[in-house]
Amino acid sequence: MVKLSEGNGGKEMDSLISRFTKDFPRGNWLHYDNDAAILKTDIGFFGFTTDSFIVEPPFFPGGNIGDLAFCGTVNDLAVMGIKPSALSIALVIEEGFPDEKLEKISDSLAKHSKATGIPLVTGDTKVMQKGKLDNIIINTSAIGVTDKVLDTPPESGDLIILSGSLGDHAVAVLSKRFDFETSVTTDSKPLWEEMKSIKPLIKQAKDPTRGGLAATLNEIAIKNNLQVLIHESHIPVKQEVRSAINLLGIDMYSLACEGRIVCIASQEKADLVLEILRKFNPDASIIGEFTGQKIPEVVIQTAFGKRLLPKPSGNIVPRIC
Amino acid sequence: MVKLSEGNGGKEMDSLISRFTKDFPRGNWLHYDNDAAILKTDIGFFGFTTDSFIVEPPFFPGGNIGDLAFCGTVNDLAVMGIKPSALSIALVIEEGFPDEKLEKISDSLAKHSKATGIPLVTGDTKVMQKGKLDNIIINTSAIGVTDKVLDTPPESGDLIILSGSLGDHAVAVLSKRFDFETSVTTDSKPLWEEMKSIKPLIKQAKDPTRGGLAATLNEIAIKNNLQVLIHESHIPVKQEVRSAINLLGIDMYSLACEGRIVCIASQEKADLVLEILRKFNPDASIIGEFTGQKIPEVVIQTAFGKRLLPKPSGNIVPRIC
Repeated sequence: MVKLSEGNGGKEMDSLISRFTKDFPRGNWLHYDNDAAILKTDIGFFGFTTDSFIVEPPFFPGGNIGDLAFCGTVNDLAVMGIKPSALSIALVIEEGFPDEKLEKISDSLAKHSKATGIPLVTGDTKVMQKGKLDNIIINTSAIGVTDKVLDTPPESGDLIILSGSLGDHAVAVLSKRFDFETSVTTDSKPLWEEMKSIKPLIKQAKDPTRGGLAATLNEIAIKNNLQVLIHESHIPVKQEVRSAINLLGIDMYSLACEGRIVCIASQEKADLVLEILRKFNPDASIIGEFTGQKIPEVVIQTAFGKRLLPKPSGNIVPRIC
Repeated sequence: MVKLSEGNGGKEMDSLISRFTKDFPRGNWLHYDNDAAILKTDIGFFGFTTDSFIVEPPFFPGGNIGDLAFCGTVNDLAVMGIKPSALSIALVIEEGFPDEKLEKISDSLAKHSKATGIPLVTGDTKVMQKGKLDNIIINTSAIGVTDKVLDTPPESGDLIILSGSLGDHAVAVLSKRFDFETSVTTDSKPLWEEMKSIKPLIKQAKDPTRGGLAATLNEIAIKNNLQVLIHESHIPVKQEVRSAINLLGIDMYSLACEGRIVCIASQEKADLVLEILRKFNPDASIIGEFTGQKIPEVVIQTAFGKRLLPKPSGNIVPRIC
């Protein structure tokens, strides 16, 4: 039986995906990571990615499921260095879902589309009987082309930069779900402008969505077969986010962000990357480095010493995105 | 409030989609119809389409939701004359969904992928709490490129050909849902081989999925601003399908097929098209023609005379695909 933990962005999900896709032909497509597929073509590297959004509740401080559906998918291409060129939108709606809410979701999608110049070109609409679906699910898929995919292997001493504070999106959603007061709003936003500015300076990037920073850093460590060391004291977290997370008893490092970049740059270039990212968000910080040890693991330096930061497992917090 | 009828593939759905997408930028993309978007590029016409599948139950005679998720989406490109070149798959699964069923769905996707050579290149997996979703939803998106999109305007006297019998898929799903005996199995199948064979001979094609033949023919009539006349006696329907539909009291012309083509050919070429299609399915038939009248409507000739066949409205039968 499928478990809730198998949708968590962590170890259990990896296992379910491996089983589900074990017999799938992949053709000539390259797989730089799990989020987007890449095909080398005559006109460059073509990227293709998809994401379904099941956030509960669909409206939360600073945004709604429409913001996530736009940003989450285009960002999967953006962090690979690919400018998204078009988006599809497939709605599955529960019978009785309010028209006003649907209009607000449409407005959010249109707003991002206009601001980024990424058109919404094709779609699908389904309605399920009341009680057969909780509110609304949106799937978006995106495509884009680039001359160069970001995939330079990191080296010993390369630095890891986080583009803003952790946990904002998760706390915004949870504040609505559990009805507590907060001034924290979702961090959800399209990342292409930031990525375009830093692309020439960085080696790789990822966005720490489901599974959070812990999943993202472990994926980076495993992919490159290199040990990552991060410093807890360097990781930007808002005080209000920290309080909420302590109160809820959840792990900050496994919480999804929807508008943050984790990127890798050489020591020479890291300061310039940081300077650029801070123009977008003053909380951007260098949070760690590659130690040079060929061990695919993430170590975190805390006030109490070093410990492993494993890929998340278990139930984490469901339906954040 | 969103109504069940707004997901029916008919008039109410058109209205919801118009409202939802009214502010969406479309960029330079061409819209030949609602199912796929087309972009003219240096390497040809690029097609992009998406579909979510919510069929209930997810297993039915002759197939399962995996078959629909593969065929439904690649067929949207195929009927436009575009060979699908890759597919994405996004699963949203209810907690507790049986592993064996998930494996069978995976097997169906893999089987079609191997048979057609269309790779499954990227995906997403989400799990919702038990009771928050009825079983499983699958979204697939597909891309492809072609030198020539099928979009030649029809003329007076051109013929309309249907590639096989109507209603099989709907009756297969309903037999499982309402627990009646039938030997009818789903018509779901990938259509590219058929489309490739007839593409040089035809002007346009569509697949009569949601909203059935009635929706498809009305879309053709409206798009081309021409009256379509079809002959009820020429429309292939299996006896067992006819009995089931009469028993259930539902309208045959609004029922979704998942492996049928409706195409347009000149009188000179129609016989050859029919000959080719009959190699795939002996039930293929010429079912009607363009009368030459510039009225965007569909008229059906029955044993009792002529009547309008309007675009479906109302609840039709929910969750067939």
